[in-house]
Amino acid sequence: MKKIAILGSTGSIGRQTLDVIRAHPDRFEAVGLAGGGRVAELVEQARTFRPRIVSVRDAEAVSELRAALEPEVRVVSGNDGLLAVATESGADLLMAATDGAVAFDAVFAAVERGITIAVANKELIVAAGELLLAAARRHGAAILPVDSEHSALFQCLVGEPHERIAKLVLTASGGPFWERDAEAMRNVTVADALRHPTWRMGVKNTIDSATLMNKGLEVIEASRLFGIPAERIDVLVHRTSIAHGLVIFTDGSVKAQLAPPDMRLPIGYALAYPDRLPGVLEVDPLAAIGGLPGASSTALGFERPDAERFPCLRLAYEALRRGGTAPAALSAANEIAVRSFVEGEIPFVAIPAVIEAAMDHAAGHELTLNAVREADRRARERAELEVRSWTATHT
Amino acid sequence: MKKIAILGSTGSIGRQTLDVIRAHPDRFEAVGLAGGGRVAELVEQARTFRPRIVSVRDAEAVSELRAALEPEVRVVSGNDGLLAVATESGADLLMAATDGAVAFDAVFAAVERGITIAVANKELIVAAGELLLAAARRHGAAILPVDSEHSALFQCLVGEPHERIAKLVLTASGGPFWERDAEAMRNVTVADALRHPTWRMGVKNTIDSATLMNKGLEVIEASRLFGIPAERIDVLVHRTSIAHGLVIFTDGSVKAQLAPPDMRLPIGYALAYPDRLPGVLEVDPLAAIGGLPGASSTALGFERPDAERFPCLRLAYEALRRGGTAPAALSAANEIAVRSFVEGEIPFVAIPAVIEAAMDHAAGHELTLNAVREADRRARERAELEVRSWTATHT
Repeated sequence: MKKIAILGSTGSIGRQTLDVIRAHPDRFEAVGLAGGGRVAELVEQARTFRPRIVSVRDAEAVSELRAALEPEVRVVSGNDGLLAVATESGADLLMAATDGAVAFDAVFAAVERGITIAVANKELIVAAGELLLAAARRHGAAILPVDSEHSALFQCLVGEPHERIAKLVLTASGGPFWERDAEAMRNVTVADALRHPTWRMGVKNTIDSATLMNKGLEVIEASRLFGIPAERIDVLVHRTSIAHGLVIFTDGSVKAQLAPPDMRLPIGYALAYPDRLPGVLEVDPLAAIGGLPGASSTALGFERPDAERFPCLRLAYEALRRGGTAPAALSAANEIAVRSFVEGEIPFVAIPAVIEAAMDHAAGHELTLNAVREADRRARERAELEVRSWTATHT
Repeated sequence: MKKIAILGSTGSIGRQTLDVIRAHPDRFEAVGLAGGGRVAELVEQARTFRPRIVSVRDAEAVSELRAALEPEVRVVSGNDGLLAVATESGADLLMAATDGAVAFDAVFAAVERGITIAVANKELIVAAGELLLAAARRHGAAILPVDSEHSALFQCLVGEPHERIAKLVLTASGGPFWERDAEAMRNVTVADALRHPTWRMGVKNTIDSATLMNKGLEVIEASRLFGIPAERIDVLVHRTSIAHGLVIFTDGSVKAQLAPPDMRLPIGYALAYPDRLPGVLEVDPLAAIGGLPGASSTALGFERPDAERFPCLRLAYEALRRGGTAPAALSAANEIAVRSFVEGEIPFVAIPAVIEAAMDHAAGHELTLNAVREADRRARERAELEVRSWTATHT
């Protein structure tokens, strides 16, 4: 029985992690749950899964939880609560599924205890990946990716000699503007950007997918997770989102991982690793690689991304090459730039300009958790300033 | 330094194995070479690679080799020669690359000594695969596939839990008649059949590719090599021969192996396993998955094979389900049927009828090396009879 704690249990990844645990009660047990502001949902989760520790974001909600749950469940809150769920719930595996930097301390504390971390918290890898992987090596903690692309690369690398990796290839859906030329991209509206071809996702993710910044951040993550430099990580656009990642080995062989776009698959892989979950044996092989029901054929198409039309991808490679806190600054500035676009303050094409200015201003060479937080803060400030300056100049 | 012995060093796979050894003199050493009738080439190989033992097919050629080589090289011939190369050359790995059953005894003798076998000899797996794998388990000898499709499956399975395999999928080029309907297939000529879309190969292989019997035999091999029953092995037609095999796991994840159609890649993988060969790091990712030079996109297409148009595929599944010596009889009868078609004695569409009749006649349940040889002999005899009876009836 593998004991699982979840930071961010009421978010999308947290919920789907609980779906996987519910489907395999003989293998997994939820021993710690940390939720955000959705207290009623957290109560419901705690009643269903009966964890040892439940943590809620706001201290004011503790009494509500306390009243609703059996007395043997420990109820905690805030940063101390995250820490308790991460380190005192008896977890074998911690699913890090909160957004932003809120759970950094809790995750690092778990790593120091040698607990396996399944990482769905992108900032944790983008901004603090080098620190996290170094701590994991020191304390013998495994770091498992949850993102479908990095899970794909991880799966392709199982049992393989890492020194024989020639290239890692991440696939990108291409987002809603893949067919537009550079000129047409100038006139992109918020409504345009919120149309996304395959995955249903939140506003931020959808814009990141339209700028390809999502893929840029994933290039940084892949570099951190697998210890491969920028120049040996490539992106190919694959519109149908069936192939999630490819590894090219030095002997010319390529391995690809394919799966329907369902986050429960990479989550289940991280939970079951090094095993895989049991399931159906009777699979239609054509459907398994993206064929429609009843179809007699399918095709997996791959295209080169166009660096000129997607400057955010170039900026992410630039941040990775600079190192230090440049990735943290890039990610923070991107949040501000995307929000400003969605709120109508800047046009789509100004997103990369805002990010670049903020990254240049805020990035430093020192790399500590405090330096990461400071770069994040400075990048946000500078990005806000760039947005205001843009608004002042263009209206 | 890994010591390699080769049975069939002057054949296509043997030559390419020596190419790989030549390219990696720091890793591999050829310690034993057994060649066929091309004595001059065998002399040349022995001079270049300086093995401990050289074996030639015909005893009459021994003196020619003896005269041409340094005195410390042991020169042997015939079946005893194959046995000496396999078991007395000090090999860590034996490349079994002869055709037919000629080297069965030598290979089994090597297995009994725990020597790793790289199998390029299809009959060895099709006809005697159960015996070979059982012997390998008993003696702790590894069996490594060399065929590109089985190497692909093997590579996808490295580090994976075998009990989580849902399906193995072999890819087929589809051969020269993939676009013809059942009616047009009746009029296939020998010249038609010798046109093949991607791989350059011998006459027998080309006809097998046109009937899909090559894939049928590979289904049997996959079942033997990986211990997976017929109903969990599928074939998809993939015209560009870039993806060589796919594994579908019980959790819904699919792994595929892709590579340019060059036999030196799976040979090099078998030689280097569990490592991979070093090589180039600077790879164009689109070219690595089949993109043409300078192209901005590529696509991997997959189609279902059509059981009605390719009855040889159905016959191979039938042989696998029957077990015993049915696969041996199938393979032997196929050789006769293909030769008879190429020699103009029977039409293309009569190939499966000849095979089916011969298999029904010759297959038995007992499975020993002698039973395999006997089934092979009886199947050939019966297939000849069927061909003569066809000729008598239709001319």
